[in-house]
Order: sequence, then structure tokens, then C-alpha cells
Amino acid sequence: MSTLGLIEYQDASPEVRVIYDDIMTTRKTDWINNFWKAIAHDPVALKRTWEDIKQIMAPGALDPLTKEMIYVAVSVTNQCHYCIASHTASARKKGMTDEMFKELMSVVGMANETNKVVTGYQVEIDEQFKIGR
Amino acid sequence: MSTLGLIEYQDASPEVRVIYDDIMTTRKTDWINNFWKAIAHDPVALKRTWEDIKQIMAPGALDPLTKEMIYVAVSVTNQCHYCIASHTASARKKGMTDEMFKELMSVVGMANETNKVVTGYQVEIDEQFKIGR
Amino acid sequence: MSTLGLIEYQDASPEVRVIYDDIMTTRKTDWINNFWKAIAHDPVALKRTWEDIKQIMAPGALDPLTKEMIYVAVSVTNQCHYCIASHTASARKKGMTDEMFKELMSVVGMANETNKVVTGYQVEIDEQFKIGR
Amino acid sequence: MSTLGLIEYQDASPEVRVIYDDIMTTRKTDWINNFWKAIAHDPVALKRTWEDIKQIMAPGALDPLTKEMIYVAVSVTNQCHYCIASHTASARKKGMTDEMFKELMSVVGMANETNKVVTGYQVEIDEQFKIGR
Amino acid sequence: MSTLGLIEYQDASPEVRVIYDDIMTTRKTDWINNFWKAIAHDPVALKRTWEDIKQIMAPGALDPLTKEMIYVAVSVTNQCHYCIASHTASARKKGMTDEMFKELMSVVGMANETNKVVTGYQVEIDEQFKIGR
Amino acid sequence: MSTLGLIEYQDASPEVRVIYDDIMTTRKTDWINNFWKAIAHDPVALKRTWEDIKQIMAPGALDPLTKEMIYVAVSVTNQCHYCIASHTASARKKGMTDEMFKELMSVVGMANETNKVVTGYQVEIDEQFKIGR
Repeated sequence: MSTLGLIEYQDASPEVRVIYDDIMTTRKTDWINNFWKAIAHDPVALKRTWEDIKQIMAPGALDPLTKEMIYVAVSVTNQCHYCIASHTASARKKGMTDEMFKELMSVVGMANETNKVVTGYQVEIDEQFKIGR
Repeated sequence: MSTLGLIEYQDASPEVRVIYDDIMTTRKTDWINNFWKAIAHDPVALKRTWEDIKQIMAPGALDPLTKEMIYVAVSVTNQCHYCIASHTASARKKGMTDEMFKELMSVVGMANETNKVVTGYQVEIDEQFKIGR
Repeated sequence: MSTLGLIEYQDASPEVRVIYDDIMTTRKTDWINNFWKAIAHDPVALKRTWEDIKQIMAPGALDPLTKEMIYVAVSVTNQCHYCIASHTASARKKGMTDEMFKELMSVVGMANETNKVVTGYQVEIDEQFKIGR
Repeated sequence: MSTLGLIEYQDASPEVRVIYDDIMTTRKTDWINNFWKAIAHDPVALKRTWEDIKQIMAPGALDPLTKEMIYVAVSVTNQCHYCIASHTASARKKGMTDEMFKELMSVVGMANETNKVVTGYQVEIDEQFKIGR
Repeated sequence: MSTLGLIEYQDASPEVRVIYDDIMTTRKTDWINNFWKAIAHDPVALKRTWEDIKQIMAPGALDPLTKEMIYVAVSVTNQCHYCIASHTASARKKGMTDEMFKELMSVVGMANETNKVVTGYQVEIDEQFKIGR
Repeated sequence: MSTLGLIEYQDASPEVRVIYDDIMTTRKTDWINNFWKAIAHDPVALKRTWEDIKQIMAPGALDPLTKEMIYVAVSVTNQCHYCIASHTASARKKGMTDEMFKELMSVVGMANETNKVVTGYQVEIDEQFKIGR
């Protein structure tokens, strides 16, 4: 389910199938998750979003697992249930162990706590942390 | 500056100095940043927060740099200016290069984008991503 | 369902019925959605909230459809599932097409992305954008 | 400063002055803070917002100080610097001591932490907490 | 359900049972809610989180009911469904009446509204509200 | 200022200048705002972000002014000061009058209020609003 419905592979236009195929090839899976099927109603957005993610999540200075855990951290902070479910699954597939997941959650919790406390106390940024010094 | 002011080392009580000393020793620095000087007005909170952070940010299944970048990711998502400044500085000190920082920002941006789009389209969680299956 | 339950029309006090009637008349519908039935437990809040919404959402310098899409944009950013469902339905009723919805989602996604990236890079506001110049 | 500028008392229209006077009388102050001077460019919004706040923040089942601290808690969670500054000042004026402020910050920090951890672990709501049972 | 599953009392290790026992004793209940059963997979986090909450939520300059309502206010602002359900239940148990709940919701709603409006109008903080003057 | 500094036109590489030129041509301006100068340290991100924005903000089913106001609505909800300043300026350039701005702020404020109240009351989505019926 999704606001505009989900477009299954067999019902997809050729331009959408090209993206679906690339997603499955890149991710080494044989299925497409609902997010893509939902935005496939907007093939331009589908193509743009997939190409952005493919570029951004590729190995680089940060490895794919680290990137996936950062994705989870943001999704948890935003309380996005779909994203937490999907990116936790992706992170596990890329090697996130239970121990890593638990530490990830602790860091995310701590960061959310101190983000608010420091703002609540109206703490000024230290000179040492200022950029362009 | 801070709502209750900042407690400098020389003005700190013995119990606060113990924490300040531990912070400097653990972090191998010779100064205390404003966050700690602000919450030092509440020595119980100072002790609790420091001990929590010390435990959570220690090397474990995740290395300290990865943890620090996750902290930055959360702080950016929460738009906490103080935390972005301080944890970006900490991450750099622990080895975050410019390339890593740039990739971190791209992942954070992308995650924030798709977190909202998937929610806006009211996409249901795929069976494959559900827990407890 | 709701924390205090839902007050149906037939069970409503006269003061609540007056608001329910006005909601149905103004919106040209023959039913009341759960939000109002939930806060009807607080007739003062029901009256205040309805009168505020009625005033704010009325045609003005911005047309009702534009206002409704802005409402959706905020609700998506806040990840409020109820509000996304109800205001997407309202926007459609006021003329939002699938094409408009898809563009709305893309703008909301993009804005959420750059909101975070610009903050993460600690970018200073340009002189040209400062108010009161 | 503000996007549309600030409307000072001497420059205000009679309808705006009526609200300014009521704010000062109700709050027992002899000045108007910038928020009101900013939205005074929209006298309808000024009137609506002031009347809402006056009604909501009046003594009731909750006392004014408790309400003000709840306002601070929300403002900290939203990282609204203006609101933190203004409502912390208001809370102090209504009797919030340093001890109360420090406990308030600790609760806000803790709540922000567990809000995210529970969501990150995808914890289902206990039957005992469900409404309408 | 939860990402790592839920650890029931009979399956818990002795160190986890000690915490479970303390939770039930402190809260005068005979059951453990899912949050604790979920993070019990990380006994260090379980112990730390429980001890923090126990310390922070204890009676002090603020009474336990006020603290619980502040917890609800934060949870609502963060749209954390689990936390809203659990802390609303806790607040009721500590004496929150329907009237108090309704006023709490009104204050939370109002604060969220003005937090955004003041930021949207780019209002500068009044000199009178600045700290360290 | 920005974490990595700002890259001015005269110091930019040819690939960055191509983007800068396209931004100025598309927007009919003779200067580049700081956001682009900050992310120009990552030419791939610069190109991707600009092309995405150019595509998304172009006239379509929604006109450019409506899109810009939606951008402001999201930025205000996220409390992103830079984005509020820059997109309010852009919206004005595209024709947003003071009256439109004021109504925009009122809708954003109202949406933020009811987003939280409906969640706080734990209101279930009406059958009529559910998708896929």
C-alpha cells in the first residue's frame, strides 16, 4: 500500500523496469521493496532518487556498512519506521552484528540526549570549535 | 555563556574537578569544553552524563571514529549547532578526513530526504523487512 | 480510538454539536473525522482549534489548495501519519492531482535534504539574505 | 529584527495597541517582546495567537509554572533558541529555581534519548498501554 | 516484538533479572514493559538506562507527576508512539487527571506552533532574554 | 564560513565553474550563495544537488512560487535558519507578497500544532482516510 499504489514489475513501463533491474542487480536481490514501487508513479523521481542513492551509498572514503549505519542513525532520529526497518535489514545484510546494532542504538540515544541538553542550557560554541579560525 | 553560567576549573568543587580531570585524561586534552562547564552546575548530571558518554563512546564493536561520525549524523539531523561544531571537531581529531566528512554529509542528506518521501507516500513496510518473522 | 475515546455526534453536548455542525457545513461533508471527536473531550480546545483552522485555511492571499499542500508538507516533515492521511485526502478533494502530489513530495524531500546538508556544513547566512539590511 | 521588521508601540495601529496593552497587563510587564512585534504585521494572527496563549497558559488543572516548564521542554526538543530564551525567562519569573531547571533539563534529555532508542529497536506497544482496552 | 526480540523474565540472565526486579519494585508493578525486554539484549545499556531513569525521575525539586508530564510533552513533540502510550499511562498512574492531560496537550500544541512561527519570522532574541547580561 | 571553507568563483575548478555558471544563468543572478560555495568542495555532490534542485524546482504541475513556499514551510518546520533566510528571499523574488508570507506562517504554525495534538491524543486514522480502500 501507498498513496498512489504500488507498481509491480510486470505492470511497470520499460523505463521503470530499467531502474528496477538496476536496483536488483546492484543490490544482488530478486525483489524490489515498496519504496521504489511507490515512487515509480513518478519515473523521473524514481530515476533521480535511485541514481543519487547508488552514487552516495557506493564504497568510497566510507565503507558501505558504515554508510548504512549512518542511514539507520538518521532514520531513528527522524522516527521513520519504514526506513528503520529497511535500513536495519540492509545493514545486517552488509555485516552489522547484534553487537554493532546495540552500540549504534546507544550512540544514537546519547547524541539525541546531549543535543537537547546543550541547547536547553543555551551553551555557546567554544572558540576552539569554531570554523575558520 | 550558558543559562546558569560556566564553571571554570579553578572555581569547581572537588567532585566536579574529578570529572573534569577524567574528561581531560580520557580525551588527552588540557581544556574542558563549555557543555561540561554548563552542566557542572548539576554535579549529579555531570557525573552521569560523562560516565554514560565515556562508556558509550569507548572502542567496542564499533570503533571510536565511526561512533563519532554517527554522533555528527544525529546532531546534523537535529540541527544542533553546538553539537555539530564539537563533534565534527572530535571526529576530525579521531581521523575523519575531508573525504569522509563529505560522504557523511551526503548520506545524512539522502537519508533525511528519503525518510520524508517514504512517509509522505504512506508506504507500508515490506513483509521481508518485518521483525519477528 | 484515542486516549480519551471519541465523542460521536449523538453523544455530544450542545456546545460540541455546534462545532461539529459548523465543521460539516464549512467542509461540505456529512461526517466528522476522529481528530475532532478526540479533542471534543475538551470543548474549549475544540472550539479554539476549529476557529483557528477555519480562519487560517480560508481563502486569502493563498488559495485553499496551496494552504492544504503546505499543511501536507509540514505533516510529512513531522512524520505525522494521521495528518498526512487526512490532509492528503483534503488536498485531493480541493483539486490536488497525482502530478501535483508527486511534485509536492519531491520538493519536501529535497528541502529536507538541503536543510540538513547546509547545517552540517555549518554554512553562514549570506549578507544578501540577511533581514534588516 | 525580523523578516517584516518589528512594530513598536508608538507605531502600532489601535487594534495592535489593544493587544499590546493586554499582553503587558496580563503579564505585569511594561514592555513587549519581539515575537509579538514581529507578528503584529498580521493583526489577525497577533490577536488569535495572543488569545490562544492567554487561554492556554492561564491557571487551570495545571499551574502556570508547570505549563511554562512544559513550554520550555517542547522548545528545547524543537531546538527553538528564541523560545528557549523567552520561556526560560518566563519560567524563572514564575518561580522556577535553578534546581527545578536542572531537573527539567535532565528529564528532557532522558526523554529524547529513550524516544529514539525505543523506536530504533522497533519495540511494539505493550497491550497494557494500548488505549481503548 | 523488537529488532532483537524480547527477553522475558524466565529467560533472563541473573544480571538482567536484578534490573527487572528493581524496575518492578521501584514502580510497584508485577510486569516489565517491552522497552526493557528489548534493550535487555544489551545488559550494559539496560543497567545504564534504568539507573539514569531511576535517578532522573525520582522526586526532587520537581515532583514525579510533573516529570512524567514533561516526558509526555517531549514524546509528543518527537511523535514517539511507544513513549506517548507508555508515559501517558505512567502519568495517569501518578495522578494525571483528564483535565490535566487536556491542558498538557494544549500547551504542547501551542508551544509547537509558536516555536515554528517565531523561527519562520526570523525573530531576534530580545536583549532582556539574553543570558549572562 | 563553512566547515571546509567557501570556494569563490575565481578559485573554482572548471567543473565547479560550469555549475556556478548554470546556477547564475538559471536563477538570473550574478552571484553564488554560500551553500553552493560550501559543497563545491565535493564537486560530485555539488553537481548532483544542483541538478536535482533544478529539476525539482522547475515549473510543472506546481508553479515555482508554490514550490518555493513549500520549501520555506519545510525549512521552518526543521528550524533551519540558513534555509529560511535563503528560501524566503527566493520566494519574495518569485512574487511572494507580505500577505502571502503571513498566511504561509500561519498555516505552518497551525500544522505544527495539530500534528502534535493529534499524535498526543493517539488518534487513529479514520477509515475514510485510509489508502487502498
